[in-house]
Amino acid sequence: MRVEYDLERVAALLPRDELRYRESTMWRYAELLPVADPRHILSLGEGWTPLVRLYGAERMMKLRKLWVKREEQNPTGSFKARGFSCALTIAREAGIRKVAVNSNGNAGSALAAYAAHAGMEAYVFLPQDCPGLIVRECLDYGAHTCLIDGLIHNAGQLIAEGKEEQGWHHVGTLREHGRAEGKKTMGLELAEQLGWRLPDVIIYPTGGGSGIIGMWNAFTQLRELGWIEGELPRFVCVQEEGCDPLVRSLASGGQFRPLQEEAGSSPTGLRVPHPPDGEALLAIIRETSGTAVAVSREEIREGQRALGRQGISSSPEGAATWAAMTRLMDEGWIGRQDEVVLFNTSHAMKYVEHPAPRVPVVKDYADWRRLMRK
Amino acid sequence: MRVEYDLERVAALLPRDELRYRESTMWRYAELLPVADPRHILSLGEGWTPLVRLYGAERMMKLRKLWVKREEQNPTGSFKARGFSCALTIAREAGIRKVAVNSNGNAGSALAAYAAHAGMEAYVFLPQDCPGLIVRECLDYGAHTCLIDGLIHNAGQLIAEGKEEQGWHHVGTLREHGRAEGKKTMGLELAEQLGWRLPDVIIYPTGGGSGIIGMWNAFTQLRELGWIEGELPRFVCVQEEGCDPLVRSLASGGQFRPLQEEAGSSPTGLRVPHPPDGEALLAIIRETSGTAVAVSREEIREGQRALGRQGISSSPEGAATWAAMTRLMDEGWIGRQDEVVLFNTSHAMKYVEHPAPRVPVVKDYADWRRLMRK
Repeated sequence: MRVEYDLERVAALLPRDELRYRESTMWRYAELLPVADPRHILSLGEGWTPLVRLYGAERMMKLRKLWVKREEQNPTGSFKARGFSCALTIAREAGIRKVAVNSNGNAGSALAAYAAHAGMEAYVFLPQDCPGLIVRECLDYGAHTCLIDGLIHNAGQLIAEGKEEQGWHHVGTLREHGRAEGKKTMGLELAEQLGWRLPDVIIYPTGGGSGIIGMWNAFTQLRELGWIEGELPRFVCVQEEGCDPLVRSLASGGQFRPLQEEAGSSPTGLRVPHPPDGEALLAIIRETSGTAVAVSREEIREGQRALGRQGISSSPEGAATWAAMTRLMDEGWIGRQDEVVLFNTSHAMKYVEHPAPRVPVVKDYADWRRLMRK
Repeated sequence: MRVEYDLERVAALLPRDELRYRESTMWRYAELLPVADPRHILSLGEGWTPLVRLYGAERMMKLRKLWVKREEQNPTGSFKARGFSCALTIAREAGIRKVAVNSNGNAGSALAAYAAHAGMEAYVFLPQDCPGLIVRECLDYGAHTCLIDGLIHNAGQLIAEGKEEQGWHHVGTLREHGRAEGKKTMGLELAEQLGWRLPDVIIYPTGGGSGIIGMWNAFTQLRELGWIEGELPRFVCVQEEGCDPLVRSLASGGQFRPLQEEAGSSPTGLRVPHPPDGEALLAIIRETSGTAVAVSREEIREGQRALGRQGISSSPEGAATWAAMTRLMDEGWIGRQDEVVLFNTSHAMKYVEHPAPRVPVVKDYADWRRLMRK
């Protein structure tokens, strides 16, 4: 579902340095986003997040340059805001009134916020053990929120079954092009913030992996535009032990294989046993001489402590990137001369202990329909 | 403790429109901040927060223009980041190693983060009923964290008593000039983001009120620079029923009087019965034909719901500004032709129910000293 742009035209009309005058949101790249009329843009202030240099950690780790991209400073506290700002702008242009998403949490609350801002009805389906605070967020934005007795792909199945009857526009990962295009802006920003250069290594927490795909698309388009040159960064996909289909598939040397059985990983954005675009992720890792790493819960906790001591609060997903970095430095895969960027994809606060609000729990679409009398 | 700048020199060296090229943090205004050498700047990506237009609410409320300044998108989830980025930059330049703050919560976690980033030791003193999640944040950034059996001014007293013996640099409200100067950037940003115009009304949640003082300083300096013209906005200070010294003092028509007895207001940034600069706040309200409003807990909850339905999550302090707006519209004090800006000063998530981490509770400095064996 790749969107084609007339990049020659963009390059002719938009000199790279003109971007300096643009607004401080991801919509500074409007020409590279699939929106017909910029007046329709649905914005809560997403993107153009800080890229913070960690000087103290560089000295401590003996690393040339280290940054963290603070995606938690987006509206709704995660990078998911980018995807929904774009997807719901497109949906609004198309006159859509009802949107539905399956999510491990952050996509749910982001959809809920943008739908509220657009005056659309939102339907959010989350795994039963989703952090209570994220469920609370969805409700606060007025979304119809349900838990599912299953994982994220079961929730996706529910929407796929019900969408026709209920008139839902399915905005799950890779179901439409807006979300991936919105996430592309992480890559555009990274290049611009580094002065149209790229780092040597990007470490990214990988569940569905659409952030990786988005950034890869960004870099490819920037090369075509002639705005960047040279090698792409080595992409490191971080997963959690117990849900590491990319790590296993990469090790096997063959095609991508989804995980048959998810084995007790934490309820975070990393828990996606069946990423819908696993094959593309594997191709990106291989093409960029990247790698995939599975880290333990204990390593994630260590990462949170270490980042906290640098003044950065991190979600489990973000902390996992620190854990992967230390592991890869120990192994010599990351060297002292490397420039490294970590992505803290969501807010630390979202995962704290909080009593779960009472919302319906369903098994599948038939069950939902019965319960809701719809 | 006003900082003097050579504004003629700034005006000569820095054409207003040059700012468009600057970085997307509050340090874009480095010439208007009291830092000797910009290389010492301690930044976690603070400031230049989104100013989001609420089109849906404008239609619903029949209001000309309404924006919310999303201060919760700062590092550490509140506007307090601005003050400490500046205060600790100055402290680092001066070679200071130990910093202490009394706080209702958000200033505590902001100090903790910036101190960690700077490699300083931080001491944070919070009221006993401070939201558990904020206490957790302070600990995660490695701060020495204590609760006090009392309110924010009692915690300030503790630091004042201990600072000499312990070698603490006291960064409580108005104890040094960095914090107020850092908060000034909210006003500078507001003017720049609105195209060097100001709104008719600014509604600001007012505890210690240093944000109000910072913005007033900003506008005064911008007028001297010739970067803005015309009347200042009417400042509305919002407080909570039970802790409303500004509202009472304004109604009395006389001088500022701190509250003798705080009466059961919520543990938020609004609960400051003895704001150290109450007289200055009162003068700003009077000079700008502003007002002060005390809202109830129920009105704050209503405000959170209403903002959530616009896609904006709000802290109790931020929601209080919505509550004040609706009240002042009902009374006709805000009219349909007004342009209004609300400040959401901190993150909704900080105030959710969360078990309090176990940290020492002390009565006063002698008690602290005994307990810590220092």
